[in-house]
Amino acid sequence: MRIDGRDYRTIWLDDDGRRVHVIDQTLLPHRLETRLLSNAAEAGRAIADMIVRGAPLIGVTGAYGLALAVADNDADTAIGVAYAELLATRPTASNLRWALDRMRAVVVAAPRGERRAVAYAEASRIAEEDVAACALIGDHGATIIKEIAARKGRRLNILTHCNAGWLATVDWGTALAPIYKAVRAGVDLHVWVDETRPRNQGASLTAFELLGEGVPHTVIADNTGGHLMQHGLVDLCIVGSDRTTRAGDVCNKIGTYLKALAARDNGVPFYAALPTSTIDWRISDGVKDIPIEQRSAREVTHISGRAAGGAIVEVQLTPDGSPARNDAFDVTPARLVTGIVTERGVCTASAEGLRALYPDLAL
Amino acid sequence: MRIDGRDYRTIWLDDDGRRVHVIDQTLLPHRLETRLLSNAAEAGRAIADMIVRGAPLIGVTGAYGLALAVADNDADTAIGVAYAELLATRPTASNLRWALDRMRAVVVAAPRGERRAVAYAEASRIAEEDVAACALIGDHGATIIKEIAARKGRRLNILTHCNAGWLATVDWGTALAPIYKAVRAGVDLHVWVDETRPRNQGASLTAFELLGEGVPHTVIADNTGGHLMQHGLVDLCIVGSDRTTRAGDVCNKIGTYLKALAARDNGVPFYAALPTSTIDWRISDGVKDIPIEQRSAREVTHISGRAAGGAIVEVQLTPDGSPARNDAFDVTPARLVTGIVTERGVCTASAEGLRALYPDLAL
Repeated sequence: MRIDGRDYRTIWLDDDGRRVHVIDQTLLPHRLETRLLSNAAEAGRAIADMIVRGAPLIGVTGAYGLALAVADNDADTAIGVAYAELLATRPTASNLRWALDRMRAVVVAAPRGERRAVAYAEASRIAEEDVAACALIGDHGATIIKEIAARKGRRLNILTHCNAGWLATVDWGTALAPIYKAVRAGVDLHVWVDETRPRNQGASLTAFELLGEGVPHTVIADNTGGHLMQHGLVDLCIVGSDRTTRAGDVCNKIGTYLKALAARDNGVPFYAALPTSTIDWRISDGVKDIPIEQRSAREVTHISGRAAGGAIVEVQLTPDGSPARNDAFDVTPARLVTGIVTERGVCTASAEGLRALYPDLAL
Repeated sequence: MRIDGRDYRTIWLDDDGRRVHVIDQTLLPHRLETRLLSNAAEAGRAIADMIVRGAPLIGVTGAYGLALAVADNDADTAIGVAYAELLATRPTASNLRWALDRMRAVVVAAPRGERRAVAYAEASRIAEEDVAACALIGDHGATIIKEIAARKGRRLNILTHCNAGWLATVDWGTALAPIYKAVRAGVDLHVWVDETRPRNQGASLTAFELLGEGVPHTVIADNTGGHLMQHGLVDLCIVGSDRTTRAGDVCNKIGTYLKALAARDNGVPFYAALPTSTIDWRISDGVKDIPIEQRSAREVTHISGRAAGGAIVEVQLTPDGSPARNDAFDVTPARLVTGIVTERGVCTASAEGLRALYPDLAL
């Protein structure tokens, strides 16, 4: 997608066919800088230090990390060491393990000497598959947006929470892909961007993405969405999902549940857009069965931003001695979700809906 | 209430019987400093610059401001000028006009030469009436807390939003008064403090108050309360109110509505604690009839805190070019409010409930 009129992906191969470029997301939205990853250790540090973030992008970075390892040494033992080191960088991201498993299986099946080419081809395939899936999510979601826009006959207001945009994937994103596709198809819309405390991925990353694509938007405190819905200022909510149960419960960034409650109270459609890989077919009751990551209290008590001089400065918000708690995600029960958008299409948020879309995968 | 083991009010007369001390709330929670107001102009600046804030405290500060004016010059014209200047400092705070009207009526009715004594006596009376009303709200609310605590038989978890504590009044507060009264009566409880973006009155003022009173508490992002309720970690919500309709709709800090929705969805009691002065008997439908103050977008795009060196620094959170919107309040419909606590007692959030408590005032 575009930044300052230029097309970007979050990760791309250097002209030397070996090294890998990524956008340094720790500096966004204040500075746009890229990093060049020259070996597996650098790829691992990019993941661990959240220079890249978002489950799909972490998976692709891990895949290229293993390709870089193979380029250095294509022996089984070296590949095993790199696999373990890369996997340890963000042990909770399921896409990372999935991508590394896929890479290792393909690479070790190839004869030595051919492994480097096989590894880069497979990493590229994983990246392209992600782009294709996100583009399809965008197409299916854009159909919903176009229908509502046609019905309303005026500029549409869409609310989103956190960042499920192209910066979390290779391109397009998940929740934002339908918005990008709809805007490119000429739909007149405006996005309410929840700032998404405590890490502010909305105020920093989603706002930055929408600016780059020229999508009209307004940043709001997370407290504001319900009030806007009460006054008819939200036509549609679209969020991403980090994990989805087979019954359609959606685990997403903390605060998503509150917006879904407000959407239901005001008759506003509420959609989750997600790749098939986030569906956990083993579990049904998300509130009961999805463990919620507890992150550092410091993300609540402190915040970083750009000071007047341009430096990125961290400031403390709370009094010394006041503890904080930082639940990273919450679960929105399927009953509050109007529909689920995946690369396969749209279904109701229910066991029946998901089974109809996934007869091959549903249990 | 207590700070570092010492008892404070937010405003008190100097030993000279003339000048007035206030806590400088712009520096909280990072620094505790008081200001000495020597004349009406200084009192006006204290209100305008938000050195004092909270409708009841603004009213009392205005009252003492008029007393300071009378001490300088007790002629009718001088009193009229001071009245107008003080009123212009925060034109939307209804308590300010109410307190100034009351002061002026009493003072101009007295003969010159006695006006100074009359003015200080009346200002003191306004302050003491506020303390008494808050203490009663505390008593009535504490009864509810004690009942729930007795039923649960374990430490109670109470969630509050924004700051409706003693720093917004002269002493005790409104939503926090029941908590202070219950804790002093020996109830074992813990408070979830919504940070309350964008101005963070929870993370700064409520956390600071609870620290001073030794009340166990944890600061959370505003996104978190619904998740905590889903997991049984909230037994009760208590919030304040800036304006309450005769039907029991509660207008309070933006985001209150979202917590009320979550409380209803999880069977958690949700109370609003408020002085009679916030009830607007002329209106019924809060969502339709209460105008919502639009504040500066800068409160969303920027935030202040204490940098590592100790300085208070403002940082920008959003990319240059992303607009923001800042609705200061929202309305929680009466159907989501379990009960209303005032200095007169507790009633259901309904026209019938309020009429029963206020047969003399209800229309």
